[in-house]
Amino acid sequence: MTQRPAVLIVQRHLAPLTAFLEGTYDVYRLWEGPPVEAAQDIGALVVAGEFPLDPRLVESLPNLKLVACFTSGYDGIDVAWCRARGLPVTHAPGVNHEDVADHAIGLILAARRGIAAGDRSLRAGGWTAESKTITHSLKGQKVGIVGLGAIGEAVARRAEALRMPVRWWGPREKDAPWPRAASLLELARESDVLVVACRADESNRGLISREVIEALGPHGLLVNVARGQLVDEDALIAALREGRLGQAALDVFEAEPTDAARWADVPNTVLTPHTGGATAEAVQGMLMLLLENLQAAFAGEPLKTPVAED
Amino acid sequence: MTQRPAVLIVQRHLAPLTAFLEGTYDVYRLWEGPPVEAAQDIGALVVAGEFPLDPRLVESLPNLKLVACFTSGYDGIDVAWCRARGLPVTHAPGVNHEDVADHAIGLILAARRGIAAGDRSLRAGGWTAESKTITHSLKGQKVGIVGLGAIGEAVARRAEALRMPVRWWGPREKDAPWPRAASLLELARESDVLVVACRADESNRGLISREVIEALGPHGLLVNVARGQLVDEDALIAALREGRLGQAALDVFEAEPTDAARWADVPNTVLTPHTGGATAEAVQGMLMLLLENLQAAFAGEPLKTPVAED
Repeated sequence: MTQRPAVLIVQRHLAPLTAFLEGTYDVYRLWEGPPVEAAQDIGALVVAGEFPLDPRLVESLPNLKLVACFTSGYDGIDVAWCRARGLPVTHAPGVNHEDVADHAIGLILAARRGIAAGDRSLRAGGWTAESKTITHSLKGQKVGIVGLGAIGEAVARRAEALRMPVRWWGPREKDAPWPRAASLLELARESDVLVVACRADESNRGLISREVIEALGPHGLLVNVARGQLVDEDALIAALREGRLGQAALDVFEAEPTDAARWADVPNTVLTPHTGGATAEAVQGMLMLLLENLQAAFAGEPLKTPVAED
Repeated sequence: MTQRPAVLIVQRHLAPLTAFLEGTYDVYRLWEGPPVEAAQDIGALVVAGEFPLDPRLVESLPNLKLVACFTSGYDGIDVAWCRARGLPVTHAPGVNHEDVADHAIGLILAARRGIAAGDRSLRAGGWTAESKTITHSLKGQKVGIVGLGAIGEAVARRAEALRMPVRWWGPREKDAPWPRAASLLELARESDVLVVACRADESNRGLISREVIEALGPHGLLVNVARGQLVDEDALIAALREGRLGQAALDVFEAEPTDAARWADVPNTVLTPHTGGATAEAVQGMLMLLLENLQAAFAGEPLKTPVAED
């Protein structure tokens, strides 16, 4: 054993965390090669929850005390499997849901009011004296929110300020100021804009199916700020190409980073590189929770923000 | 005189109005050549208020009864000069201010949360496993609104839903739920985001001067959804190039259509082709007012929405 506890950062884009960890911990980074010599030492994994966590990695580290998820979402982690091994999982809830909701609203405006397309067209010389782009007012466009958690509620409040009536659907009834649709399909059928804001796990992979996409229809806008796996992306692309769906504004993708070529000839899209919750302020809040959870785990104290039992 | 009253559409992009007018009026279109033979017949001009109305055109039409401005803004028209000639001016107030405010919020989000830049970067293959774009949360970013009219108030309400504190400045004190800054310069100095939402006329040309732009500063965002002439555009471009201003998100320009080449190497901009108020719903409302004003003018009845006396 080294004198200091050791942690392993799993995903490369989390590399900047090193600077905040190496004052206290020996920091290993998986993309620099499997830490074979340090396998006995590593007491915690630091991961981004949207990427699948390889069980073999967990099994190769006998003294693991914690899977510390830097993000709020932890869909890449089999929490039940970890629990069965006595391995707790922490995450960063309640930090960036309002920023994600802001981004969802930005995507709605960018798509519906033609801001992204207008910016591209103007730069390409497409604005002439004869041309006049007319969009539709947001007023009265019905927003359907899939999953009324913290993000969904924050989207709903903002949508109301934009004069958009709100409904929602989720598998469980809950007390909310907005009506719940009888089913996801009904919500899609009755909505002009469908915002995917639910948690992702294996049970709801492909939830936004071809059928849901077609129910939203040729004038509808699909917004996804949750997880790419929730949407059948091949069906989405086909529907956009064939005009069976009006528009899509996506911050998340089945594979991330998504391949630019995959979207090159797909019309009526606004695409951002999973930046919805990635604000400096949220990252700072996530970092604080990470440091507190790591400290608690190595001190044998109660964890600050463990993933809640379902 | 022909049997039907005659109107002259002045700007080419208003050509689609022809279909709605020609059932009742003989319709002439200035860009098809000056209507020399019809000069005695033309009783009304149909204009877009953001373009300068040539006094010589007005003087060449002896039987003019109305300058009917299709838009809400009428900054291109010398209303006092028209009045002195006994020529009333109508416009379309209260129709699209909420849509313009939506667009302003869309521009803030597109710029601040990197939606326009993220979309461009992703399409260009700029999203890699190593890259992670971090923006700043909107929470707590101070919005300063220049001109608390209908658009300004609608922007203020939306900004609050996005957790942004609001202040404003206008030349006249007014009763409002948001504090008024002592001066425009102070507002710019104290704001993270400055939204230009005031009416434009000759008295406030270049209101957003180099000094105001520099007071907003290297982290500030300037949003203009009002009129291009309100901003010293050369000073704006220089400040963006030299990092003295952080970002600009513009729906309006000194010359429209603006030349794409003018912006090609200006960093940190979001640019839309004056589409803020151009929704199908607003256009329909403007059309209704136009038709009502024309009918009233030719019938000698009180005008529906004359430009108010200052």
